[in-house]
Amino acid sequence: MSPGMPPRPATPLLDRVKVPADLRNLGPAQLRQLADELRAETIDAVSVTGGHLGASLGVVELTVAVHHVFEAPHDRIVWDVGHQAYPHKILTGRRDRIRTLRQGGGLSGFTRRAESEYDPFGAAHSSTSISAGLGMAVARDLKHEKRHVICVIGDGAMSAGMAYEAMNNAGALRSRLIVILNDNDMSIAPPVGAMSAYLSRTISSRTYTSLRQVAGQLARRFPRTIERTAKRAEEFARGLFAGGTLFEELGFFYVGPIDGHNLDHLLPVLRNVREAEESQGPILLHVVTQKGKGYAPAEASADKYHGVARFNVVTGEQAKAPPGPPSYTRVFADALIAAAERDPAIVAITAAMPAGTGLDRFAKRFPERCFDVGIAEQHAVTFAAGMATEGMKPFCAIYSTFMQRAYDQVVHDVAIQNLPVRLCMDRAGLVGADGATHAGSFDIASLGCLPGMILMAPSDEAELVHMVATAAAIDDAPSALRYPRGEGLGVALPAAGTVLPIGRGRILREGTTVAILAYGQRLADCLKAADILAAAGFSTTVADARFAKPLDGALIGQLARHHAVLLTVEEGSIGGFGSFVLHHLAHAGLLDRGLKVRPLSLPDRFIDHDSPKNQVREAGLNPEAIAAAALAALGTAPGREIRAVSDRA
Amino acid sequence: MSPGMPPRPATPLLDRVKVPADLRNLGPAQLRQLADELRAETIDAVSVTGGHLGASLGVVELTVAVHHVFEAPHDRIVWDVGHQAYPHKILTGRRDRIRTLRQGGGLSGFTRRAESEYDPFGAAHSSTSISAGLGMAVARDLKHEKRHVICVIGDGAMSAGMAYEAMNNAGALRSRLIVILNDNDMSIAPPVGAMSAYLSRTISSRTYTSLRQVAGQLARRFPRTIERTAKRAEEFARGLFAGGTLFEELGFFYVGPIDGHNLDHLLPVLRNVREAEESQGPILLHVVTQKGKGYAPAEASADKYHGVARFNVVTGEQAKAPPGPPSYTRVFADALIAAAERDPAIVAITAAMPAGTGLDRFAKRFPERCFDVGIAEQHAVTFAAGMATEGMKPFCAIYSTFMQRAYDQVVHDVAIQNLPVRLCMDRAGLVGADGATHAGSFDIASLGCLPGMILMAPSDEAELVHMVATAAAIDDAPSALRYPRGEGLGVALPAAGTVLPIGRGRILREGTTVAILAYGQRLADCLKAADILAAAGFSTTVADARFAKPLDGALIGQLARHHAVLLTVEEGSIGGFGSFVLHHLAHAGLLDRGLKVRPLSLPDRFIDHDSPKNQVREAGLNPEAIAAAALAALGTAPGREIRAVSDRA
Repeated sequence: MSPGMPPRPATPLLDRVKVPADLRNLGPAQLRQLADELRAETIDAVSVTGGHLGASLGVVELTVAVHHVFEAPHDRIVWDVGHQAYPHKILTGRRDRIRTLRQGGGLSGFTRRAESEYDPFGAAHSSTSISAGLGMAVARDLKHEKRHVICVIGDGAMSAGMAYEAMNNAGALRSRLIVILNDNDMSIAPPVGAMSAYLSRTISSRTYTSLRQVAGQLARRFPRTIERTAKRAEEFARGLFAGGTLFEELGFFYVGPIDGHNLDHLLPVLRNVREAEESQGPILLHVVTQKGKGYAPAEASADKYHGVARFNVVTGEQAKAPPGPPSYTRVFADALIAAAERDPAIVAITAAMPAGTGLDRFAKRFPERCFDVGIAEQHAVTFAAGMATEGMKPFCAIYSTFMQRAYDQVVHDVAIQNLPVRLCMDRAGLVGADGATHAGSFDIASLGCLPGMILMAPSDEAELVHMVATAAAIDDAPSALRYPRGEGLGVALPAAGTVLPIGRGRILREGTTVAILAYGQRLADCLKAADILAAAGFSTTVADARFAKPLDGALIGQLARHHAVLLTVEEGSIGGFGSFVLHHLAHAGLLDRGLKVRPLSLPDRFIDHDSPKNQVREAGLNPEAIAAAALAALGTAPGREIRAVSDRA
Repeated sequence: MSPGMPPRPATPLLDRVKVPADLRNLGPAQLRQLADELRAETIDAVSVTGGHLGASLGVVELTVAVHHVFEAPHDRIVWDVGHQAYPHKILTGRRDRIRTLRQGGGLSGFTRRAESEYDPFGAAHSSTSISAGLGMAVARDLKHEKRHVICVIGDGAMSAGMAYEAMNNAGALRSRLIVILNDNDMSIAPPVGAMSAYLSRTISSRTYTSLRQVAGQLARRFPRTIERTAKRAEEFARGLFAGGTLFEELGFFYVGPIDGHNLDHLLPVLRNVREAEESQGPILLHVVTQKGKGYAPAEASADKYHGVARFNVVTGEQAKAPPGPPSYTRVFADALIAAAERDPAIVAITAAMPAGTGLDRFAKRFPERCFDVGIAEQHAVTFAAGMATEGMKPFCAIYSTFMQRAYDQVVHDVAIQNLPVRLCMDRAGLVGADGATHAGSFDIASLGCLPGMILMAPSDEAELVHMVATAAAIDDAPSALRYPRGEGLGVALPAAGTVLPIGRGRILREGTTVAILAYGQRLADCLKAADILAAAGFSTTVADARFAKPLDGALIGQLARHHAVLLTVEEGSIGGFGSFVLHHLAHAGLLDRGLKVRPLSLPDRFIDHDSPKNQVREAGLNPEAIAAAALAALGTAPGREIRAVSDRA
């Protein structure tokens, strides 16, 4: 504990709850106290680690109520996204490690199967819970088992097509599934989309459905006495349909909205839902919560402490990052704004990541040219493609990991039609505390295999400025730009971006024995590796490929012909830049005379959350590992490190 | 024309319509006649070429009406999927080539921007039209232009999350967009899902909304006299909401359902919709049509002639394929059924492709263990992952090209969690008449870069039987199996599949100079290439990798050490199998002494529809090209062909 921090809160009741079974026999007043203690513990823990505080605070009562009424792990509780599951982790045997959240070797910031039997499905990307839960429910039915499956999904996650696909299927399959819609009218960013507006209408003025009304809803679906005359049955059916909500029309039995912080409402309603007949199909319980609930600084904050750094519990003041260079995100946004000042055809699209991509700044300057489509990456990309057909210049800013959601749209709507959509992928490469689910590892391989795509990656923030200008200028082909999470190297930024020659790299240092060809953010460490090699007596050339596609054949030929060893280095998976270089070398006959080529990429395993520096070392892409790979190829070092990285068979 | 075929229908009116402008001044009776002639011409054309007849017949009147009321190409008409656009093609300057549909060098079987200015957005995959159309509409607004954007989307396409994401965004953006829901209660297969049930309820008993009722609907939204008292306005708003359909709740103004074959209804309603005020936001016009309409054999057929071979117009009898070996699809289905007989944990999932994947046969045998989730690939994969967590053994059968829709789900829900979901990808590689949009080109690269995945591809149908058994046995990791469209090689099928050793290939022919390592269906042509090389005096080893991941390091080492030239051959893009082999060779030091390695993959361009044989030749993966690549590497031939294939810079 830091000096000046308050003592940990007293949590006498929570101290006795090691697993959910310990809270099943508590009475209502005790559960209320438990919720208060759980909230205090969550605040205190996140004040130490940083993390997703707001979402977790919003579901404290819901977490207590669900674990009181249902019997995990026998019953399956699936938290969508999983970043709101800190209270769940505290109640499910992980309290002793809760202050290791998101730290190397510590608890994940999301749910994770490997971490606990109480996490039946891992998450981190949004909107997967209903699909996963339906799979569990159907498996239960096939195996003739008895258990409840409960999915807790936020209103923001409801904008994703995947959630709709799952509801559409659940409503048809009629399997018994409980979906709790945790409606806090806010996901990461303010909500967008018609579904959000629909939900707002449903809960207009926050007038919750009373317990008596809920009882009426339940009775309507599970009537004790069946209507007997045909006419009455018909009226009854018609009444259901006419008054049906969107969810009822999709085949769900809808209950709510109820106050998600009121245990006196939550508990009886959950018990009723639990006891509903098995044959009745899926149920949607609409619960209204407040993000950041119960912690004044969070409630007062615009983003409700969605993701926070370490903070002082008393004041809510977050630890400030030491002053440093601007982030790639900010440099991207500024460069895009500058380009858009010059070119009115430039528009920007994001999918519920306005702040994370810097487009909030773009939107402030050009509100009518910025589109946040919600958690809807598929739509985002094809929407951009549609704009491109009309001569606009769309920049589609989506994290690398989330671009995976739009893969078919990139292939089918952008690449095959050769439309000049600019894919701008922040968080490319390793991302630190968010771990494997958020790493941008696969974009080079999955996009580089598409005919006609142009792939760029800046080696520093000045390069990013030039590449935004270059992307703006590429108006006859799709292009993709990847850049890392976090701050730049602190290099001077150009006053304006310069359009780079397409498919041309640059040589930064000339040597004679080893050549290192980097793509993207690993360049700086390649220069350090060259220093290590120089100290070992090996003259090293370092080049910046700038483009993974098209490749700079002349540059690669020069490196291959005039060096004994050629390393390629990228912060991406196998099948990407290094593979394209190998393919080129092979077909150009440049391997025929015995070039010692070593493609260094991310290893063939998922890398857990840790500090970025540790992750890079774990991946074998730090300067020492790069140098060691060169030395091993030269036959002057055992090369143990690099063998560990590249062993695939 | 074949002997015995009837003469082409007389089409005096259609003969005068070269472009849509030619039909704008026709009166109602003439339009009715034009529709009849257009239907006859469509039937006659498809009787020659084969293709998607049923869907096109369902939209003949709609096509005529839309082109009469709107002014393409100035107005943008976006046909979802595009396989129903044959009548549209006939009316938009392509009638003279309509009998080249789906033939090499001929018209595409889908809409295509490169083909006509009347195709503002190409398609082939489902459910993209609303996103693309919204992009066009927003671009129009930004540019202060005047034009209509009309999307025509089927009810089956509405099950895809992408369509929902687009509606959700359109409903919020309030841009003027016309979506015509072409509801024929059937896409490729009988419809599934709650949305489909909802639509059926909406049009129960096919009682269409009368013109007077539609006028009422329109007046409700566009009232001539505004309600003045607050109370009345409130009631008015409430009435809208309470009576709102699902589409109204998503922000659309809903009109319909109307009879899509009745021009007397279609024309005035479309005119009204066209004249609605710009500020009124998106409109959804619900049109009910009948697939196969107006052609008795199609109407009588179960699949309404969804996709047909050439046929006799009088009898409807389709040309039968000459008797041949069973298709890979059928072999897969039989092998899966056999595996499921032995193992009750095996379940099968598909996404609106029951017949195309052979799962219709599985469903017949195991109705309760087969799940068609609709056009919803994202959900399909995560639903399968959910089942896997409960100990089921899910086989998720989705064409390679459509698996692209579920890429993030494969990464995030399957691979990161290491769940034993079996991805079974039919139509891997080149697919013939469906062209580039349906080619399965990218699955090896995009899935092979994911840590922990096991990738298999059979070289013939007997191997497929073994690989289904192998996939069933792999219960500790995700696996992916790719196999081609069309019939097998005619090899004897084993009585039962044998579980193959994971990551081990096999040598089929031993030689000394050239080694060819094939992955999947190209093996047979590699054996032919070896014959060509033998005739040229070069002894050739041919091996079947069986697995692209994990690789058979021992086999690759043996091939590399004992041959002067090593070719890898796959029917997939760069970044796939050949890249993995190169990566392995590089890190194992097997390139250091000058192995002449040449990875042969699909070229870096999209390959148009043609016969499969021509496509393979175009890709440079036919026996002659494979042999030429080896000869070029040996320095004994100019190797022009292979250079053309591999030139990437």
